[in-house]
Amino acid sequence: MSTTVSPLAPTHVPDMPAIAGVKLATAAAGIRYEGRTDVLLAVLDKGTAVAGVFTRSKCPSAPVEWCRARLAKGKARALVVNSGNANAFTGKTGKQATALTAQIAAKAVGCSPNEVFLASTGVIGEPLDATKFDGVLAGLAEQATPGDWMDAARAIMTTDTFPKVATAKVKIGKTEVTISGMAKGAGMIAPDMATMLSFVFTDAPIAPGALQSLLKSGVEDTFNAVTIDGDTSTSDTLLAFATGAAAAHGAPKISRAADPRLKAFIKALHEVLADLSEQVARDGEGARKLVEIIVEGATTKASARKIAMSVANSPLVKTAIAGEDANWGRVVMAVGKAGEPANRDKLSISFNGIRVAKSGARDPSYDEAEVSEAMKSPKIQIKISLGLGKGRDRVLTCDLTKEYVAINGDYRS
Amino acid sequence: MSTTVSPLAPTHVPDMPAIAGVKLATAAAGIRYEGRTDVLLAVLDKGTAVAGVFTRSKCPSAPVEWCRARLAKGKARALVVNSGNANAFTGKTGKQATALTAQIAAKAVGCSPNEVFLASTGVIGEPLDATKFDGVLAGLAEQATPGDWMDAARAIMTTDTFPKVATAKVKIGKTEVTISGMAKGAGMIAPDMATMLSFVFTDAPIAPGALQSLLKSGVEDTFNAVTIDGDTSTSDTLLAFATGAAAAHGAPKISRAADPRLKAFIKALHEVLADLSEQVARDGEGARKLVEIIVEGATTKASARKIAMSVANSPLVKTAIAGEDANWGRVVMAVGKAGEPANRDKLSISFNGIRVAKSGARDPSYDEAEVSEAMKSPKIQIKISLGLGKGRDRVLTCDLTKEYVAINGDYRS
Repeated sequence: MSTTVSPLAPTHVPDMPAIAGVKLATAAAGIRYEGRTDVLLAVLDKGTAVAGVFTRSKCPSAPVEWCRARLAKGKARALVVNSGNANAFTGKTGKQATALTAQIAAKAVGCSPNEVFLASTGVIGEPLDATKFDGVLAGLAEQATPGDWMDAARAIMTTDTFPKVATAKVKIGKTEVTISGMAKGAGMIAPDMATMLSFVFTDAPIAPGALQSLLKSGVEDTFNAVTIDGDTSTSDTLLAFATGAAAAHGAPKISRAADPRLKAFIKALHEVLADLSEQVARDGEGARKLVEIIVEGATTKASARKIAMSVANSPLVKTAIAGEDANWGRVVMAVGKAGEPANRDKLSISFNGIRVAKSGARDPSYDEAEVSEAMKSPKIQIKISLGLGKGRDRVLTCDLTKEYVAINGDYRS
Repeated sequence: MSTTVSPLAPTHVPDMPAIAGVKLATAAAGIRYEGRTDVLLAVLDKGTAVAGVFTRSKCPSAPVEWCRARLAKGKARALVVNSGNANAFTGKTGKQATALTAQIAAKAVGCSPNEVFLASTGVIGEPLDATKFDGVLAGLAEQATPGDWMDAARAIMTTDTFPKVATAKVKIGKTEVTISGMAKGAGMIAPDMATMLSFVFTDAPIAPGALQSLLKSGVEDTFNAVTIDGDTSTSDTLLAFATGAAAAHGAPKISRAADPRLKAFIKALHEVLADLSEQVARDGEGARKLVEIIVEGATTKASARKIAMSVANSPLVKTAIAGEDANWGRVVMAVGKAGEPANRDKLSISFNGIRVAKSGARDPSYDEAEVSEAMKSPKIQIKISLGLGKGRDRVLTCDLTKEYVAINGDYRS
């Protein structure tokens, strides 16, 4: 947790309404950090549906394996998140630690360990001492309240400089339901997904299978379209919980993702996920600029995504932006290395709306001074027009600064 | 050209013998830099065979396209290299600039423009004023001598901090032949290949087709196994020239790459390419550590290469090494994100010979103080044992420092 808040932090923090069926509590279990909370317990009402998407790492953390194995039943009563230790690459002890944590939480909440979901973030490879949760979780279960979402979002932070929350209200049928979520970043962020933990809660009565579909398509253009450094964590976890409490107020029970009554809900969920994932980009380690890469005119959307990611992950593009230099030559380089269809002589590139290159060469009309001024903005949009087809995509990232190197060259010690 | 030489620069610079049939000359044409040479002309005897490998960028520079189109005939009489301007993404004017440069050089040397090979390195997207070569190349052709290789290697530098040369002598049949080469780096370096220009010359009488085969297999474990930042230039070029002058001293003319008489030559060529490519890694922008990634026990060599590259290109691994932190958790992360077969519970990792992780967890026997001491070395070897098969590979890279960000955040302005 940094003492200096990212200059890209949102200026407005929303009021976070309670979600019926969700109670939150945090504590300082002393896992790694001094003088701050590092454990979050969310207690969920009976009947809560759960869905999740996880890292595609071939070396996932123990909590990721724990959650994956328990997702099939689709039911959750508790979520335990700790920061400071990722319980990743911890061998058998890691597996034991997840089982013990779930057991302690199950006892505290009064459910089966298989209804407990877990996420850990922090250092990889250090054993997690789950006995630290003993006593702590029982207390948290007692004191959990509809609660303080900012407090919860703070407890899951690692190198994040600000807590990340988002919320939306929307109707299913004639009944208003609420979606509220939190996330943490802030490095080792790349699809799919990011060392990124995010938890989204709703009181909408949506069955697990439908919730899983909504979540899976919801991340495609949100969390999976954000990259900080191209590094993919062993622990990336996004869980969605639907308590169904709004059914008591008349919300219809939804069993299929294709149900037309979900239209507004899907849009609202997308907005919450987009908001949270943009906040992750805004809090990229050392970030001073939020960078939006738009690729249009590609042969397909997938091709546009690959090219956008190639640009977004290029250290040379990212350092140029840190230096406030509209170095479109490096953008050309990154387009070229993506390996996707691209015709140099049809390529156009603009920075914050100013076209600097067209038809494979420098745009003769562009004014260096005007572009230099535009590059001072905290938000930089690079638009790349390939002129080949209708494929379009958008990716968010941030610049690469000396602070990123400082943060990551001195993290573990 | 930096005023501070990389701490990883070789301490020993070899004496560079002349290559019969090759004459070199350099000049300051004032393309971009003040007070230094920026043009190299190599004049080659009649009958010189040429081979080349180039960037796989979809947006290659005009000189790359020029060379590719002229490689089929396999004959060269001149090489013109300029630094300061890459003549990349320069549209029609770029194409015209290559044609004009070749014309000027052809006139100076007395050959066809199609026997002139070109390479440019430097800023992308700025038109290259080829008229600057007029007058300059004629003078160079007159004053070219078997010459000063260090001077030639210096003229092709951009952000390099030291000139890169390598040489070897070896017998074909009973006749000694010489191989000498030069290279430049130092950023935008990734296979295949790197903004990397390299030129290798030999007096061996090897036919163009055979030379092409030797070059192609020669780069596989040398230039294609080096990465600085994962960025691939639009201009990467490696050209090999065989003058055949050694035939006058009895060297047999070789027409097939599989000729058994080439055995020692192939080894020597590999050594020259390996030496030059290691120097590129040693001069990576801002580099303070040379990093060797060895992956063994992979399912195949190709799989080992992908995993090694994933580790070598990980910003989090590279910044950890800059911070002298044996952060094997990040190595696990990078192995996991490569998408190749890997079993967390069989994974072992060592830094400079000290095993820090085995069987999917921290090695209980390792001593943090001992590892910390080892991480102070300017050369770091990370060995990753997957325990799955016999696939093995090796990749060279360097650390990611604040200096890299400084160099690249303030390059163009």
